[in-house]
Amino acid sequence: MTITITAFDRSPDGGRGLARDTRVRWALEEVGQPYAVRRVTFDALKQPAHLALNPFGQIPTYEDGDLVLFETGAIILHIAERHAGLLPAAADARARAITWMFAAVNTVEPPVIELEIARLFESDKPWASERLPLVEARVRDRLGQLSRRLGGDDWLDGPFSAGDLMMVSVLLRLRSSGLLDEFPSLAAYVVRGEARPAYARAFADQHALNTRP
Amino acid sequence: MTITITAFDRSPDGGRGLARDTRVRWALEEVGQPYAVRRVTFDALKQPAHLALNPFGQIPTYEDGDLVLFETGAIILHIAERHAGLLPAAADARARAITWMFAAVNTVEPPVIELEIARLFESDKPWASERLPLVEARVRDRLGQLSRRLGGDDWLDGPFSAGDLMMVSVLLRLRSSGLLDEFPSLAAYVVRGEARPAYARAFADQHALNTRP
Repeated sequence: MTITITAFDRSPDGGRGLARDTRVRWALEEVGQPYAVRRVTFDALKQPAHLALNPFGQIPTYEDGDLVLFETGAIILHIAERHAGLLPAAADARARAITWMFAAVNTVEPPVIELEIARLFESDKPWASERLPLVEARVRDRLGQLSRRLGGDDWLDGPFSAGDLMMVSVLLRLRSSGLLDEFPSLAAYVVRGEARPAYARAFADQHALNTRP
Repeated sequence: MTITITAFDRSPDGGRGLARDTRVRWALEEVGQPYAVRRVTFDALKQPAHLALNPFGQIPTYEDGDLVLFETGAIILHIAERHAGLLPAAADARARAITWMFAAVNTVEPPVIELEIARLFESDKPWASERLPLVEARVRDRLGQLSRRLGGDDWLDGPFSAGDLMMVSVLLRLRSSGLLDEFPSLAAYVVRGEARPAYARAFADQHALNTRP
C-alpha cells in the first residue's frame, strides 16, 4: 500500500518549507517510509473532493489504503506509532514525547499563528504598529519558558523525538520575524533539527516542488 | 498508585468549567479512574516547583508514580490509551479519533483563544471594536466547516470518543460569545457532551472547588 499525502500545488511560502506538508515529509523520511504527493490547488482545497478528506480545507492529508487522516499532529503520531525512530520505546518516555507534540501545537503555535496573522493579514490595519508589540510579547513569553526548559540540552526530553520534530517545525515559522534569534539556545535547537538528514531530504523535496517552472 | 492532577486554586472563570482541568477530570470520569486534585495559586504557577512539572506554568499537570505529564491533550490521550472508553479498539477508527483531538486543539482552538484575547485582554484598546468582527469571522469559518462535517450525527466519527471530549470542551469556551448559537447543530452537540454523566460529575467537582467559601 502506498502512502499518499497532499501538499499545496504551489506553497504560498515559495518553498521555504513552512507549509505543514514539510512536517509530515520529515516524519516519513525519519522512519524511512516512501510516499507519494498529490498537489492541491487553492481552489480545489475548498471543493467537496478535498473537504471529504479534510473538513477544514487544509493540507496535508494522509491516505493509506482505506485510512484517511488529516491534522499534521495526528498524522505524525500515527506514523510514529507504526515505525521506529520517532518515539521512545519505554512507556513513560513515549508519553512525555507525545506531551511535547501537543505543547508544540497547542501552547507554542497559537501565539506564533497570531503573530503571522498580525504581520501578514492585519499589517494594513490602523492598529498594526501599536498592536504588534503585544503579540510579540506573548510569543516571547513562550520562547522564554521553552528555552529555560531546554537549557543546554540538544533535544527536549532525551533523544530526538516526534515532539522535537513538531517543536522545531513550529519555531521555524518564527525565523523571519527575528524573534527566534533573541533566544540563541532555541535558534541553535532549530538549526540542529534542520541538520538532520531526514529534514534535509524533506526540505529539498518540497523546495523542488514549489520552485518548479 | 494515585493519579494526581493540578487545578487553579480558584479558577478565573469562577467555576464555569472552562479551565482545562475540567477536560482531564471529564476523561478520568469517563474511564472510571479516581484521582486527587492539588490546587495551585497563581503565584505558585510561576515558581520552580510547578515549572518543574509544567515549563509553561499552566494547569493541569498529571502525576502517576514517576510519570509527570502536562498538556491537556497529551494527558487525555495517555488516559485513553490505558483505559477503555475514550478510543475505539479498531486501529483506523482509533487514529481518526486522535485526529479529532488534534483538530480541536490545533485548528479550532487557536481562533477561539484569539477571540478570548480580543474580548478579555484587548477590550480596552482603541482597535477593539473595529478588530473584533475580523476575529469573529475567523471563528465562524471554523464553526461552519465543523458543522458541515458533523451534519446530523451525534458525534464526529461514530461513538463518543476523546476527540469529541476535546472538541466539545473547546466549543464550550465560545458559549458566552453567542457565536455557538449561530450554529444550532454545534450548540446541540455541546449540550450532548454536557449531558454525559461523566461530564456532569467533572463539572460538579470543579464547581464545588471554585465556589467554596
